[in-house]
Amino acid sequence: MNLQNDIVLRAARGEKTERSPVWLMRQAGRILPEYRAVRAKLSGFIELVETPEFAAEVTIQPVDLLGVDAAIIFSDILVIPQAMGCPYQMIESKGPWFENTIRDESALSRLRIADPGSDLKFVTDAIRLTKKELNGRVPLIGFAGAPWTIFAYMTEGSGSKTFSVARRMLYAQPQFSHRLLEMITESTIAYLKAQIEAGADMVQIFDSWAGVLGPEQYSEFSLKYIRTICEAITEVPVTVFAKGAGFALREMRSLPCRTIGLDWQMDIRESRSILGDQFTLQGNADPCLLYAPEEIIQKGVEDMLSAFGDKPHIANLGHGLYPDTNPDKVRFFIQAIKNYRPR
Amino acid sequence: MNLQNDIVLRAARGEKTERSPVWLMRQAGRILPEYRAVRAKLSGFIELVETPEFAAEVTIQPVDLLGVDAAIIFSDILVIPQAMGCPYQMIESKGPWFENTIRDESALSRLRIADPGSDLKFVTDAIRLTKKELNGRVPLIGFAGAPWTIFAYMTEGSGSKTFSVARRMLYAQPQFSHRLLEMITESTIAYLKAQIEAGADMVQIFDSWAGVLGPEQYSEFSLKYIRTICEAITEVPVTVFAKGAGFALREMRSLPCRTIGLDWQMDIRESRSILGDQFTLQGNADPCLLYAPEEIIQKGVEDMLSAFGDKPHIANLGHGLYPDTNPDKVRFFIQAIKNYRPR
Repeated sequence: MNLQNDIVLRAARGEKTERSPVWLMRQAGRILPEYRAVRAKLSGFIELVETPEFAAEVTIQPVDLLGVDAAIIFSDILVIPQAMGCPYQMIESKGPWFENTIRDESALSRLRIADPGSDLKFVTDAIRLTKKELNGRVPLIGFAGAPWTIFAYMTEGSGSKTFSVARRMLYAQPQFSHRLLEMITESTIAYLKAQIEAGADMVQIFDSWAGVLGPEQYSEFSLKYIRTICEAITEVPVTVFAKGAGFALREMRSLPCRTIGLDWQMDIRESRSILGDQFTLQGNADPCLLYAPEEIIQKGVEDMLSAFGDKPHIANLGHGLYPDTNPDKVRFFIQAIKNYRPR
Repeated sequence: MNLQNDIVLRAARGEKTERSPVWLMRQAGRILPEYRAVRAKLSGFIELVETPEFAAEVTIQPVDLLGVDAAIIFSDILVIPQAMGCPYQMIESKGPWFENTIRDESALSRLRIADPGSDLKFVTDAIRLTKKELNGRVPLIGFAGAPWTIFAYMTEGSGSKTFSVARRMLYAQPQFSHRLLEMITESTIAYLKAQIEAGADMVQIFDSWAGVLGPEQYSEFSLKYIRTICEAITEVPVTVFAKGAGFALREMRSLPCRTIGLDWQMDIRESRSILGDQFTLQGNADPCLLYAPEEIIQKGVEDMLSAFGDKPHIANLGHGLYPDTNPDKVRFFIQAIKNYRPR
């Protein structure tokens, strides 16, 4: 099916576009009253993720209500550990929690490579349903966590400021760590291919915890596996977003992906000069900018878009929307991006 | 009094030293059973901070038990908000918590500039006592939080992964934010001068939450005030450690301080090439390295020290010691640094 609005996809292919395309990380859910109304009907976050009709509904909400140029499937990066045999709970106001962490051979031996056809069918079903309901209005983005970030949760067992348990394993059990990372990578490739098969027009890899590793470990235990995924996914454009990995931009230059996501600590012009012109850049407004008065948001948009200049880019935030953001400010931000014309 | 071992101080002055000097952030306390024995006698962390005899005792422990080349006064960066009239509690396994946050004019109007002579006498008393008991063995390091980091706690009211409340204020109430930052800065200068007067041989400014700000806000709301402090403190060498601020190294080049601390995401050679030769560099092993087998620690030490080369440096971690680190591994790390000779 031809897309009526394919501006994000064209930018992701490296084409120049008539204006800056825009979508927002975490746009599906969190800030919208309409999302909370759906959520209130269910027992919790995981039920929402696992029920295709509801996942599709909240995926499409921001297209209608915020005016973004792409939808991103409502899901969670932690469906992968679950599909590998390492389930989790989402504890209200605390975050994810794994009853069984993967720290030794016996735990590892109980894991399997995820089979998207059975273990993750709720995601591919949600994608098919969303594509049908979107009816070609905008592209649909699929996603997965980067293997290091998934590894961090599976070993640490929860969120953490330092992920010192996960990082300890890289030093104390490097071979073991590589074996777990390989299993996650293989699962993730199968998962992303299934999302594409189901209709995802492009995919993004989120390395949410890139920022706790030093450069050498990041190269050995994270980028290596992101590279493997990028090499395997040739069907659609791939975006890599490694939050907190400004130190690794030089090495990311050789990643076989189309788009590199920037967080708000990465200077756009400097990142462009490090990465060269072969990538589309995505990002990178501070999510807190959306708490500001409109004139400050307007200036933030202008600064960001003039830094991107006429090189391929996709406007976004430098991280996910914060839950208490006012939807009116989000709409203002999106409209300011769409209205922007270079001086 | 002449110091018997002044190698850290000489390195901080930019002199070449016969071997790499070493001390560790968070060396005072946390990992030592001898520290926990002192702590067990008291009601909690804050009582330990506020009782000079005990603070002095745990300050000196790592000099004897670990063999570091400097002591750092056992204290807490949050004594400054407390001295300004914004007290906190330290909640076991949760961290600091402020009953009253500073988010509006009425809260601001109840704050005062800290008077170290009255409000922080327990710190200067602890420094005097420590200096006496150290009896010139090694230098004593004083410290304070950077104004942005202190502001983040005073406005957010606790630790946070994103500090989105604190950051929101920078966008929504920039003038208010600057006024609070000015009060913190003035208090911090008075506090550091009192520490030096009491005997601190050098001081370090910790910007623990540098890593949540983007480059422009970091410049406007953090580095500006760090610069003011550095300009005011001319009596002893000043170290600035801004965790997560790799993006700001170029701007830090013009800071009037002697030593720049590096975290483990900042590549030593690259940082040296950005900062130039006028600084002593300090850091930057990943605290998780100390979970590794000895041969990996040895290699980590060799990699770090060869990256520092023959330019002035002080070996340290890239962040504080983690509480569950084995003291034997810490001793091994320190000894490996002391034994290292360039090939």
